[in-house]
Amino acid sequence: MTRTLVIETDGPGLYEITGRIDVPPGDGLLTLFVRHTSCSLVIQENADPEVQSDLAAFFETLVPPSDHPSMSYLQHTYEGPDDMPAHIKAALLPTSLSIPVLDGRLALGRWQGVYLFEHRRRPHRREVAVVTTAGR
Amino acid sequence: MTRTLVIETDGPGLYEITGRIDVPPGDGLLTLFVRHTSCSLVIQENADPEVQSDLAAFFETLVPPSDHPSMSYLQHTYEGPDDMPAHIKAALLPTSLSIPVLDGRLALGRWQGVYLFEHRRRPHRREVAVVTTAGR
Amino acid sequence: MTRTLVIETDGPGLYEITGRIDVPPGDGLLTLFVRHTSCSLVIQENADPEVQSDLAAFFETLVPPSDHPSMSYLQHTYEGPDDMPAHIKAALLPTSLSIPVLDGRLALGRWQGVYLFEHRRRPHRREVAVVTTAGR
Repeated sequence: MTRTLVIETDGPGLYEITGRIDVPPGDGLLTLFVRHTSCSLVIQENADPEVQSDLAAFFETLVPPSDHPSMSYLQHTYEGPDDMPAHIKAALLPTSLSIPVLDGRLALGRWQGVYLFEHRRRPHRREVAVVTTAGR
Repeated sequence: MTRTLVIETDGPGLYEITGRIDVPPGDGLLTLFVRHTSCSLVIQENADPEVQSDLAAFFETLVPPSDHPSMSYLQHTYEGPDDMPAHIKAALLPTSLSIPVLDGRLALGRWQGVYLFEHRRRPHRREVAVVTTAGR
Repeated sequence: MTRTLVIETDGPGLYEITGRIDVPPGDGLLTLFVRHTSCSLVIQENADPEVQSDLAAFFETLVPPSDHPSMSYLQHTYEGPDDMPAHIKAALLPTSLSIPVLDGRLALGRWQGVYLFEHRRRPHRREVAVVTTAGR
């Protein structure tokens, strides 16, 4: 069973998608795969929203826009100052996540939420493929 | 088949779990999933222990404690100076690992070991869900 | 079904392997697993080659060779200045990738390519295990 989840984003940051994932009955494995190279999937704490904004702030500091002096070595700049940094963040963070399914529920820990992490500034329509495979 | 592996940690660093993973007979895929947002799973060289301590040192340098001057922009600090950096490291490093199973053995390379990477300072009891899915 | 893909590398950088991955008919999940601790697998933009060279340049800047003054804390240096940084990059970037299979094709986005990211300077022969698991 493969489905596609569509997430509309409106600027950089984390968008929680935990509640939007359909989980099949029984046991197995659910895999999410983001079909883009400028956003990511990430599992993070779902309690304090400051964790999510701090996380975005860290990555913005680690990978500044390409018009920042420290990034002057970048060549791929014609798609905007947030484009190449978005590709770099997409390499540093997961493109796919695999989560065990136990008795029809994601086996997430108590504080774990699933997020789409948008790295681009302009609004985007993001597709996440969801596939479930059978346990044995 | 889904199981839970429990790992008791006692401070930051890598804890090898390769030998504790039960592998089913036949071929397929084994997925490990850590049910926490302040530790990680990582595959690393299992020969020289300095690789593991150097790895921990690199991440400590890249993501210093939140009371370090370079991290003054962090907001989520009330759970201790090692908490938000632990969440950041948990985003930078894998939450899940999928390893092919060949004839009842993990298809690891000769120098690969599987580790739980603890990011918190205090002792923790960590749970890793292990699920195997059938090859086709 | 498990196979091994062999990739000959000749220095650091990204080597596209998308076209070399055999995809089974039907639906399911395909997982790639690199059997080494000094190279990675990564999904990146396959359009402009500058994205790939910029990506390699970023990681070279983030994790310089161990004879660079900023890396003087590293202990594991006897295998050459590019060895421990290669292990660090191998922790920061994926060892395994799971990609949904839809009707006998990888469900990659339009701009996504699959790459082996070599972190060592000398030529290497790299093995990637490929396993497919059945959808349900």
